[in-house]
Amino acid sequence: MDTQGDNERLILEASGVLARLRAERPRVHCLTNFVAMQLTANLLLAAGAVPSMTMDAAEMPAFVESSRALLVNLGMLDPWRQAAIPAALDAAAGLDRPWVLDPVKVDRAPHRREFAADLLGRGPAVLRCNAVEAAMLEPGPHIVTAVTGATDAVRQGDRRTRLGGGTPLMDRVTAMGCAASGLVAACLAVETDPYLATVSGLLVMKVAGAMAAEKAGGPGSFAPLFLDAVFGLDAATLQKRAQLT
Amino acid sequence: MDTQGDNERLILEASGVLARLRAERPRVHCLTNFVAMQLTANLLLAAGAVPSMTMDAAEMPAFVESSRALLVNLGMLDPWRQAAIPAALDAAAGLDRPWVLDPVKVDRAPHRREFAADLLGRGPAVLRCNAVEAAMLEPGPHIVTAVTGATDAVRQGDRRTRLGGGTPLMDRVTAMGCAASGLVAACLAVETDPYLATVSGLLVMKVAGAMAAEKAGGPGSFAPLFLDAVFGLDAATLQKRAQLT
Amino acid sequence: MDTQGDNERLILEASGVLARLRAERPRVHCLTNFVAMQLTANLLLAAGAVPSMTMDAAEMPAFVESSRALLVNLGMLDPWRQAAIPAALDAAAGLDRPWVLDPVKVDRAPHRREFAADLLGRGPAVLRCNAVEAAMLEPGPHIVTAVTGATDAVRQGDRRTRLGGGTPLMDRVTAMGCAASGLVAACLAVETDPYLATVSGLLVMKVAGAMAAEKAGGPGSFAPLFLDAVFGLDAATLQKRAQLT
Repeated sequence: MDTQGDNERLILEASGVLARLRAERPRVHCLTNFVAMQLTANLLLAAGAVPSMTMDAAEMPAFVESSRALLVNLGMLDPWRQAAIPAALDAAAGLDRPWVLDPVKVDRAPHRREFAADLLGRGPAVLRCNAVEAAMLEPGPHIVTAVTGATDAVRQGDRRTRLGGGTPLMDRVTAMGCAASGLVAACLAVETDPYLATVSGLLVMKVAGAMAAEKAGGPGSFAPLFLDAVFGLDAATLQKRAQLT
Repeated sequence: MDTQGDNERLILEASGVLARLRAERPRVHCLTNFVAMQLTANLLLAAGAVPSMTMDAAEMPAFVESSRALLVNLGMLDPWRQAAIPAALDAAAGLDRPWVLDPVKVDRAPHRREFAADLLGRGPAVLRCNAVEAAMLEPGPHIVTAVTGATDAVRQGDRRTRLGGGTPLMDRVTAMGCAASGLVAACLAVETDPYLATVSGLLVMKVAGAMAAEKAGGPGSFAPLFLDAVFGLDAATLQKRAQLT
Repeated sequence: MDTQGDNERLILEASGVLARLRAERPRVHCLTNFVAMQLTANLLLAAGAVPSMTMDAAEMPAFVESSRALLVNLGMLDPWRQAAIPAALDAAAGLDRPWVLDPVKVDRAPHRREFAADLLGRGPAVLRCNAVEAAMLEPGPHIVTAVTGATDAVRQGDRRTRLGGGTPLMDRVTAMGCAASGLVAACLAVETDPYLATVSGLLVMKVAGAMAAEKAGGPGSFAPLFLDAVFGLDAATLQKRAQLT
């Protein structure tokens, strides 16, 4: 298998996903935790998507219908969002909307783990989490699994891609992982192959993160510079700085 | 009618509103959505007001009594805030506190539209929204209506003012519209004419937005620069850069 | 009593607390309000701690057990957090985890005052608040009381320390006080003397605040620069810029 050629094609296609995100400006509904909301919304806006975040169960059919993809994040899981998630997924199933599951801190919250396992059975397109969280779950082989960290590992069946680059500063800004899941959901809104959508979203994170780290004086100034880098990222830079193996 | 003269007087009076905001430091109670809270609070603090955001129904009388104006924002409307709003408005009516209604996403959430229509009947001083939201509602002619966008349009009965300037970057930062509604509420706290208060708040947004955009590298760095511009805005700059028609 | 010598020793020991925070990266569970969450999480991450913010009562035993200290903040007190707090404190008592009480706006919310008085009876290690809030409460003499403002006053029994420095810009960024309480909780996680932990956390706030103010163009750019300063703060700078009396 010509892995280098595959990766070059993936990077080229990821540029196309980012271009479509900016051109189509898809609506993406994000059911996410309170700490992550502002950064997630700002990241999606910087990348071109239009986020909404309502989490009332009764409003889920209308919001899911008017969105093209969905994020389900389990951080700080409250009874209100816990009721909205099944309502949103019922609507998503009927309308064939793809969604990302982010099982935040399933390793630390026992009953969140059971809920996450149930949700995996409802067919997310993508599972995005860290290594400790991934160890608690058993996603089916058709689900794209993205385990992020110093190096990101994306897997679906026999396909495997690793993404290097980024910066340790990303671990010093709250909700960067949650926001990455939101960006992957935005990519799903404009790309039918969930594997390519996932690699595209994570690649933008890694490249923009590395660019912002070069200018940042610490994690505080990093966060706005990261959003600037996502907003201004061009295809040539994405391709030049991508580190796929 | 001497519109140019009227506008010059409005701009001059708006400088006075901003000066009073800084001198009097009024308390403003903001019932707003989770994504908008931090930016709204920071904008009010930068402009001189002192925000509070509690949304427990039982605490509304005490918080409304110790505040001089109120913001009612329907974004991400949850049962908790939905109960607090009538309690806050009952208190506001008894104490004659002015308030701003921001009917976020009434176009996408059917039962939020009915709630917004009910609230319009309770007499907000100002309705602040975008064009799509405005099309769903029928405010009475005594309510100041501010439809914001590339150009803002403020209307009350026969009075009409349009505000140009600003920057497209404002659409790439989440909750800028919500925060603008909060700033209008802060202006209502120190100015009895709701038309002037509305023009004052939106003018500060437009001028500070344009100033921040000149230095920003994208939407990430724009947000803190915008708060800096609001904080440092002087009367001469406000008057020089105002674009009223 | 050799106050100057005592203060020099305190400052030296505070450097040690900050060093341990960075080396040990303790988990700190923060029950805090929605406006304060993002800044609190980012401050803890910048200082070296690892925050969590879940506020579901059922998850409290697991989160408190896997954390080394706890923050209980009463801002925007909702029924959900109101139920989580006793559950968290039951778990903390059984596991001997120290905690900080931040009685936000007890002066403005009557029934929050009663709740705060009850919580004082449950033995926080530290009470952190402003002068108006402090006047509403009667902490026992064994509780470290930190009243912050232009000058911070820390007291426990006969011990007293005042911290100068900082910047008025800290009052123009929402939730700086709430975040300070979170940083004190993080210091409690690595330091058994709550008096030293409190002085350490507040000293980092004052020194980093003063450093950020020198570069900031206003409260917007101040906030990220403040986080950068916390992240990069070295022992020599902390000792040189400390103003203890």
